[in-house]
Amino acid sequence: MSQETKHIALVCPGGPIDRGLANQTSAIAAARFGERAALHFHPHCFFEAGHFAGDDATRSAAFLEVANDPKFDAVWFARGGYGACRLDDGLFTKLNAAARTKTYLGYSDAGMILARLYQAGIGRPVHGPMPTDLTRPDGAQAIARALDFLVTGAADTLEPTATFGEKTVAFNITVLSHLIAADWAPDLSGHVVLLEDVSEYLYSIDRAMFAILSSPKLRHAAGIKLGRITDVPENDRPFGHSAEEIVAYWCARAGVAYLGRADIGHDADNKVVPFGASQPS
Amino acid sequence: MSQETKHIALVCPGGPIDRGLANQTSAIAAARFGERAALHFHPHCFFEAGHFAGDDATRSAAFLEVANDPKFDAVWFARGGYGACRLDDGLFTKLNAAARTKTYLGYSDAGMILARLYQAGIGRPVHGPMPTDLTRPDGAQAIARALDFLVTGAADTLEPTATFGEKTVAFNITVLSHLIAADWAPDLSGHVVLLEDVSEYLYSIDRAMFAILSSPKLRHAAGIKLGRITDVPENDRPFGHSAEEIVAYWCARAGVAYLGRADIGHDADNKVVPFGASQPS
Repeated sequence: MSQETKHIALVCPGGPIDRGLANQTSAIAAARFGERAALHFHPHCFFEAGHFAGDDATRSAAFLEVANDPKFDAVWFARGGYGACRLDDGLFTKLNAAARTKTYLGYSDAGMILARLYQAGIGRPVHGPMPTDLTRPDGAQAIARALDFLVTGAADTLEPTATFGEKTVAFNITVLSHLIAADWAPDLSGHVVLLEDVSEYLYSIDRAMFAILSSPKLRHAAGIKLGRITDVPENDRPFGHSAEEIVAYWCARAGVAYLGRADIGHDADNKVVPFGASQPS
Repeated sequence: MSQETKHIALVCPGGPIDRGLANQTSAIAAARFGERAALHFHPHCFFEAGHFAGDDATRSAAFLEVANDPKFDAVWFARGGYGACRLDDGLFTKLNAAARTKTYLGYSDAGMILARLYQAGIGRPVHGPMPTDLTRPDGAQAIARALDFLVTGAADTLEPTATFGEKTVAFNITVLSHLIAADWAPDLSGHVVLLEDVSEYLYSIDRAMFAILSSPKLRHAAGIKLGRITDVPENDRPFGHSAEEIVAYWCARAGVAYLGRADIGHDADNKVVPFGASQPS
């Protein structure tokens, strides 16, 4: 029985990747799905312009091109880093009917785009692994999970919260703290908000949680779950509270429920979190 | 001719200071003003609770105590660091008539308090040097300037923008990016906003400027001036844009005027910026 091929376009809204990483990702897809999956790395993924995979106009055009192309079923962000917030504001008004049918998968810096798409009701934004995770220990597991989700939608790829039929979103704490003041930041009333971070001092996590929970956009969230906070640098003095104590503290101050741990993070175990209400499993 | 003594209370909303720094600051005040200035370091300044000069309740009570005490003419924040956003939200509703007559001086993390006081119309929030600046090269110059401002209000202590009769505010970029989503963040329409930062990667400055200028609170600002961005750590790749290019870029995107450089920063030259409209000199 022949099965339809899933065509997945890859772009880099922040930093670039190298061809080795692209080839490795394609090899995993080929081994796992043969002709059922076809990865299409946009050429700009390999550009370098200072910090970025091409300048802002180049990255904006690449995203708009693949999002609007009916040939692609999904847009997979190949890497985070930094730069997604620099995409043209205007492109989000140029997304066409094809763009509205797609899945958009990524996390970390790519959360800037997931948030805008979600607020605008365009496509299906999803928080989950990216090809650059191959550089982490056991990263191939994360890539296999992302591909399983994109190609088959397998339920075992999902973070458990996303299988309860609740409205969920997931973000990197630092990224959410920076987008939450924007007028286009989504109103998270009624949502379970899953959070994670990497390589930030605990005082920085604390300050970011203050920023997030001071926003009216979070005031009526259904609750917050904390994923993993990894690679915390050592500060000149101990912060005196753990990451979980920090998140629970700011939740209590804001009157938002702290709902315990989530299975997401900058690591191989990072589970998939579709934005919005999923079907109960 | 006898002159009235200015009584200045010092508190630490973030990290603690040591007694040596307090004594050094008092010695500069004594040498410069004799009995015209009296510094009162609140005992909590020397407490240590994890990252902070006492726990949140202790620091909140100390600030409330000195702000509400009619004996003090000014509250001078002795150190930034991190922690001012953790003060009790409720204390800002407990500030009395005496608190409304005072000057509040500090910068960096203390901007969290200056912003709330300004939004609430309480007292005279002022961005300027703090005792902890004594640890910087030529830091005594900064302390002398702060004392001159607090004791005599000397016009030569002021950042030039603050002498033009325009509405001004000044903030650390990272601090403003974290408070701008709060419902109590001041509306900066019509204000010239002076910004500075220290020890942040350029990509972090870029992301913070995105956050600040994505907020409707800045949409109708009269303009932005850039102070000094110092001690920028070296990243694994050059960012590709200077700090001034970054600020001008985000101003252009937001349609806010970029008005050039300001004479503020984490250094000995940091000039004084009273919040709001000053008298033309």
